[in-house]
Amino acid sequence: MKEKICIGIIGVGRIGKLHTENIVNNMHNVYVKWVSDIYIDKMTDWCSMVGVKNMTSDYLDILNDEEVDAVLICSSTDTHSEISIEAAKHKKHIFCEKPIDLDIARIKEVAKAVESAGVKMQIGFNRRYDHNFKRAKERVAAGDIGDVHIIKITSRDPAPPPIEYVKVSGGLFLDMAIHDFDMARFLSGSEVTEVTVKGAVLIDEEIGKAGDVDTAVIVMTFENGAIGIIDNSRQAVYGYDQRIEVFGSKGCITAENDFPNTTKLVNIDGVQGDKPKYFFLDRYFESYTGEVKAFIDCIANDTEPEVGIKDGLNSVVIGLAAKESLAKNLSIKI
Amino acid sequence: MKEKICIGIIGVGRIGKLHTENIVNNMHNVYVKWVSDIYIDKMTDWCSMVGVKNMTSDYLDILNDEEVDAVLICSSTDTHSEISIEAAKHKKHIFCEKPIDLDIARIKEVAKAVESAGVKMQIGFNRRYDHNFKRAKERVAAGDIGDVHIIKITSRDPAPPPIEYVKVSGGLFLDMAIHDFDMARFLSGSEVTEVTVKGAVLIDEEIGKAGDVDTAVIVMTFENGAIGIIDNSRQAVYGYDQRIEVFGSKGCITAENDFPNTTKLVNIDGVQGDKPKYFFLDRYFESYTGEVKAFIDCIANDTEPEVGIKDGLNSVVIGLAAKESLAKNLSIKI
Amino acid sequence: MKEKICIGIIGVGRIGKLHTENIVNNMHNVYVKWVSDIYIDKMTDWCSMVGVKNMTSDYLDILNDEEVDAVLICSSTDTHSEISIEAAKHKKHIFCEKPIDLDIARIKEVAKAVESAGVKMQIGFNRRYDHNFKRAKERVAAGDIGDVHIIKITSRDPAPPPIEYVKVSGGLFLDMAIHDFDMARFLSGSEVTEVTVKGAVLIDEEIGKAGDVDTAVIVMTFENGAIGIIDNSRQAVYGYDQRIEVFGSKGCITAENDFPNTTKLVNIDGVQGDKPKYFFLDRYFESYTGEVKAFIDCIANDTEPEVGIKDGLNSVVIGLAAKESLAKNLSIKI
Amino acid sequence: MKEKICIGIIGVGRIGKLHTENIVNNMHNVYVKWVSDIYIDKMTDWCSMVGVKNMTSDYLDILNDEEVDAVLICSSTDTHSEISIEAAKHKKHIFCEKPIDLDIARIKEVAKAVESAGVKMQIGFNRRYDHNFKRAKERVAAGDIGDVHIIKITSRDPAPPPIEYVKVSGGLFLDMAIHDFDMARFLSGSEVTEVTVKGAVLIDEEIGKAGDVDTAVIVMTFENGAIGIIDNSRQAVYGYDQRIEVFGSKGCITAENDFPNTTKLVNIDGVQGDKPKYFFLDRYFESYTGEVKAFIDCIANDTEPEVGIKDGLNSVVIGLAAKESLAKNLSIKI
Repeated sequence: MKEKICIGIIGVGRIGKLHTENIVNNMHNVYVKWVSDIYIDKMTDWCSMVGVKNMTSDYLDILNDEEVDAVLICSSTDTHSEISIEAAKHKKHIFCEKPIDLDIARIKEVAKAVESAGVKMQIGFNRRYDHNFKRAKERVAAGDIGDVHIIKITSRDPAPPPIEYVKVSGGLFLDMAIHDFDMARFLSGSEVTEVTVKGAVLIDEEIGKAGDVDTAVIVMTFENGAIGIIDNSRQAVYGYDQRIEVFGSKGCITAENDFPNTTKLVNIDGVQGDKPKYFFLDRYFESYTGEVKAFIDCIANDTEPEVGIKDGLNSVVIGLAAKESLAKNLSIKI
Repeated sequence: MKEKICIGIIGVGRIGKLHTENIVNNMHNVYVKWVSDIYIDKMTDWCSMVGVKNMTSDYLDILNDEEVDAVLICSSTDTHSEISIEAAKHKKHIFCEKPIDLDIARIKEVAKAVESAGVKMQIGFNRRYDHNFKRAKERVAAGDIGDVHIIKITSRDPAPPPIEYVKVSGGLFLDMAIHDFDMARFLSGSEVTEVTVKGAVLIDEEIGKAGDVDTAVIVMTFENGAIGIIDNSRQAVYGYDQRIEVFGSKGCITAENDFPNTTKLVNIDGVQGDKPKYFFLDRYFESYTGEVKAFIDCIANDTEPEVGIKDGLNSVVIGLAAKESLAKNLSIKI
Repeated sequence: MKEKICIGIIGVGRIGKLHTENIVNNMHNVYVKWVSDIYIDKMTDWCSMVGVKNMTSDYLDILNDEEVDAVLICSSTDTHSEISIEAAKHKKHIFCEKPIDLDIARIKEVAKAVESAGVKMQIGFNRRYDHNFKRAKERVAAGDIGDVHIIKITSRDPAPPPIEYVKVSGGLFLDMAIHDFDMARFLSGSEVTEVTVKGAVLIDEEIGKAGDVDTAVIVMTFENGAIGIIDNSRQAVYGYDQRIEVFGSKGCITAENDFPNTTKLVNIDGVQGDKPKYFFLDRYFESYTGEVKAFIDCIANDTEPEVGIKDGLNSVVIGLAAKESLAKNLSIKI
Repeated sequence: MKEKICIGIIGVGRIGKLHTENIVNNMHNVYVKWVSDIYIDKMTDWCSMVGVKNMTSDYLDILNDEEVDAVLICSSTDTHSEISIEAAKHKKHIFCEKPIDLDIARIKEVAKAVESAGVKMQIGFNRRYDHNFKRAKERVAAGDIGDVHIIKITSRDPAPPPIEYVKVSGGLFLDMAIHDFDMARFLSGSEVTEVTVKGAVLIDEEIGKAGDVDTAVIVMTFENGAIGIIDNSRQAVYGYDQRIEVFGSKGCITAENDFPNTTKLVNIDGVQGDKPKYFFLDRYFESYTGEVKAFIDCIANDTEPEVGIKDGLNSVVIGLAAKESLAKNLSIKI
């Protein structure tokens, strides 16, 4: 095992910065040698603060550095597949934010490139490393609830993204529910065979005009017979709402939302507690560290990533089927 | 207002006995003059214990008694519509257990008879009087969550009914989910316009052989744009599971399951509390009194029943649509 | 066993009425033949409503009726010991509301009379039959927490009683905390050997002028080494607050307050639930039935009452020691 | 304001290391120039990992470095006062772990030295920066519960410290409850005027032989009339137990224990959740960062520390009074 794994971060927007800081602060066996960004000029202060010495606007500089073992691809979605293929060609291990691509064929090209190169690729489904959901999965895997019958995922954002983002993101099913599709597969330990969707525009008409919905209910049938339900909203005024439930032949597991504190006030108006954590950077703070640690571990120990290309692919397949189901008002087989 | 409203109970199986005892114990403005049952011979001890003096195996004896103001129809489902029509002809107010009938046309005949007779008819959707759901409805009605976007109902029984019952009951959608359909309409304050169902046989193959499912997920679209989800299971090994959630533009209301006590033990294995209440007689104990009190009140004050024939009809319409959706794997418009 | 146990109720104020109705409604093996009250003239409507046929202003009429097996003494506190002694002389089993008397010597006279007569006597510490505390006791008794180390009781009323009552009741330690002293003995399964009290007048100066406190913290040392804490307030503006905690060598049991429903609203202001149940008639509704059922059972089965004279005596002993501790600012040995 | 505040850490045992890592990882306006430790030889790997360049076994090297603005004193308790006085003489701002000293006179000497030198001194009562307790304090300060009547603090460790530690630490009241004394003062916003203690040896006889107790209940009277209760145990087998409650004229605030996740399993045995967080490094993780950030802020902005020498002094005063109360079985005025 190398003493220090050498890393480059490609794209240091919000998530790229977060990963960089998590690594610098918490992973003493990792050396962040490079960051690249198309707006790298604006990043010099931040780079010096976190102590990353090599900056570039061209990610190929990173790929061409032989010392670099692995890259984290945190650039915009439309660049993920291209950079992944290049990284594979340069024999770098890859951690890629989701989705790999919105095009199935393109994801398969990435898969082929990664396989040919013999590098590892992990997809950024960080929620698998969330303290609540990880524990739920452990219990399911331990057989605590027997066979899985019903899976329920509540996933609501505090506020809609900008309309410009909605127009290019692939929409609710591919930018938001995609995490829930992965969670459903993760919790069930089974593949989705059919998707049925009901959606509505109840929050912002502009979202409807952009061809998307802001409220959706997604029903999934799994290979193992279980039935899954996701309910999504672009706007829970009280903050981020991320809960799951797995019901089976021997019991039921629930994971409630996360709150900033346990304080309650009871007075003449009743019992009152604070709102849940506001959004993903708060709620999933630990899981972002967890997923990168897992990636580093699988490089260090030469094991397979826990969240692989197949996971990246299948969640997009479900997302596209969900869009089709909504458009046709039909169940779509996968 | 009469000093005491005079009542006859038709059918004194489990629910008929419960209503009788609730009235005798709690409603001092009601006089239970009669009970009828096809097995009345076996009921004499019970009748003497509760102090009901007139027993008959022929419910017409009750209808022919001019002192009687109202009847509670608690006999087997297949007799509900016939007895309702007879009761209406005899100018008796009617409280009828759900469902009125499994045949839409037949329910409409009951409605016509009740209307012609000018009597009141209340349907036994007791859950509207449950302490949790009633409070949730109050909050929805008060505008506390703004416009309703998503309704979620979890409704799971502790154990499947006998197969013989499954064969004649109309199945999961008409004997079990029918309560949830009414709850969905109650909470949303809106009518269901489309139903989509996924079902599975995961608990007992005999249920499948009887043409029914034991696990189901039902998605409903409402006139007001909301989307509803029901998840049903015939067997939650931990006991009765009855929860709801209503999510809207201004917030979200949840009502958790009911437990027999608030005691928790924390030890080396973690935190441990008791199972939820086992089944409907425990959980909905108060709501059975509540619904009959409401019925008596609407007679005493000459107001409309809060749960009328329309509610009895529409829940059956949804149930039949749900069966069709499952059979055809299609969304069914209502 | 007699077919029906024949009962007279002595004193039908709020609690006497409650017991009468509970028996009439729920205990079919009991016959309430008599009620007596010094204001019996005002009770005729109520008597006819609940169906009790014999009314008197002189409780001796009840004691002189040979058919009567037992009496419930629900009259004012200052009459408890005298009526108990008379009832014992008349060979009636006795259920007596707490406290038996505020004078230790007098309680011992009652004990002697009861023993001589060979009748049963149960004291009205209803909270032992509360769903939460009964369950906690079961767990302690089952050894779930090992040896008991610390017992904590929170006991707060929603509003102070009238000053006139405070003046004659014996004060907070004898009219209110007495229930908590019994609960502490019940949960610990051990006797109190020392009491230390801190008290304050923080709610109503009139209470201070009447020689009482409205806020108190009571520390108890138990024979088995455990330490107990009670905190009392005459005024929790949010309603009745009744919680316990038992901490031991193997774990900790808590019982939280009771709420009227499980409904929660989460919105832009946070999570909001209803206030706890308002006061003892709501909160301890079931326990009042439970204690009388237990009393009837011990007559029917000729067993010892679960809450006997010793319990009635020892709670008063602790209460008097508490008053002394407060007055002297010293720990008082018992 | 200086660009970077220059810091030396004196003593890098568990807490010293934690503070160092927190600063290095999270506070970009701080430069940790030095660490000192009497076992510095064993710390070289750790120093190189966290990137601290100057190591010494003599803390005077740090004090003599003119670049150094402030020191964190994390050495053993018996050295706190001496190093504090030296640091003050060298005009360094001081963050000192609690307790400053176990001798009141000695603490006053420290206070005098700090005052003369005009430096800032903050005491390491980190729990004031805990997410739960900080929020509770905010609510109390905002008047949400009106006047404070009763304060309750539950503070139990998962396992006793080594007997050798118990012998020199000052015992339960000075090594453990001291945090709770500060919390009581913090939450009440008032000073303790009287202390009454009951203690017992229920966990380990060796603790008793060392002259200490392992279980204690402490009652405090406050200047503002409130009454406070602390219950301490050296061994909660289920993990760390840290809860508070503040009850007042307008309501009650509670802060429950912290858990590693929100996952619950309900099955045939009941509802089961994980144990609370195990000990202080888990539970108070954030508060250790919070307190040092606050210290740095008060240097950067030249404001008074939120937790000053008075807080360090008064908590020791209460601790010594608690020991005296236990020894004499009397309430002790302060």
